Amino acid sequence: MKTDEDFMELALEEARKALALEEVPIGAVVVCNGEIVGSGHNLKETENDPTAHAEIVAIRDAARKLSSWRLNECQLYVTIEPCPMCAGAIMQARLQRVVYGAVDPKAGVAGSLYNLLQDNRFNHTVELKSGVLAAECRQIIKDFFSELRQTRGRVGESG
Amino acid sequence: MKTDEDFMELALEEARKALALEEVPIGAVVVCNGEIVGSGHNLKETENDPTAHAEIVAIRDAARKLSSWRLNECQLYVTIEPCPMCAGAIMQARLQRVVYGAVDPKAGVAGSLYNLLQDNRFNHTVELKSGVLAAECRQIIKDFFSELRQTRGRVGESG
Repeated sequence: MKTDEDFMELALEEARKALALEEVPIGAVVVCNGEIVGSGHNLKETENDPTAHAEIVAIRDAARKLSSWRLNECQLYVTIEPCPMCAGAIMQARLQRVVYGAVDPKAGVAGSLYNLLQDNRFNHTVELKSGVLAAECRQIIKDFFSELRQTRGRVGESG
Repeated sequence: MKTDEDFMELALEEARKALALEEVPIGAVVVCNGEIVGSGHNLKETENDPTAHAEIVAIRDAARKLSSWRLNECQLYVTIEPCPMCAGAIMQARLQRVVYGAVDPKAGVAGSLYNLLQDNRFNHTVELKSGVLAAECRQIIKDFFSELRQTRGRVGESG
């Protein structure tokens, strides 16, 4: 039986794939009945697609594989707290549960700026767990921006 | 010089394409320097993609055409107030301005449940105008659900 930490380790693997493409290293996997049914990493720059965050890529991958937009028995593991777009996609896909690693105090809406996933005015709410492998999930991002600042001069951290 | 109403009429044309596919009839266009650079309609059921809302389809279309995820000189016209996913995508794409038709009191976050697009804690805020051809934008949805209830029995309005 795999644990939340095991699945987050796979999301971190995805984040490392983004890193190899010089993308902000965020990764996600979708799990259904203990099996990975979707995976994704940030591809925004690579694909010139503003919607290509890790969560969106993973959710679309899972929906394609399961031939259904309803992922109501699935769980999403993502290395960083979701932004509004990704939190919204999580609700649209009716995901049962979301587990994330590190908080995003600047743009996170699963506890930081808002908690959209648990606002019961929407037609779907989501179980939430945070802080799983948070240190590793945060560190890979910190290292990325630290490296970027050294090689390209001072930059903002906008994902 | 085209007006907001002219562009909303084109978004309504997109909504009619969704209707023809028996999708919830919502449409959107992206405009840059007075030209349409992206268009989309709801394709959620057709493509089994929970992210295939009109706004997302139109934004991805525009980013592909302009070969850039930054749509910061563009405006989005959409028939219904954006949900969290679409509002988030609008911010991710750095759109300058959003014009929508009818409000969505159940899931709209551009004034109804929240106003995410103008929360300056995020790294981008968006000019907003609502109520353009609101009656037409609302009516096409009302007719769709009314027809659906007649043909398939009682259904919810969850988009």
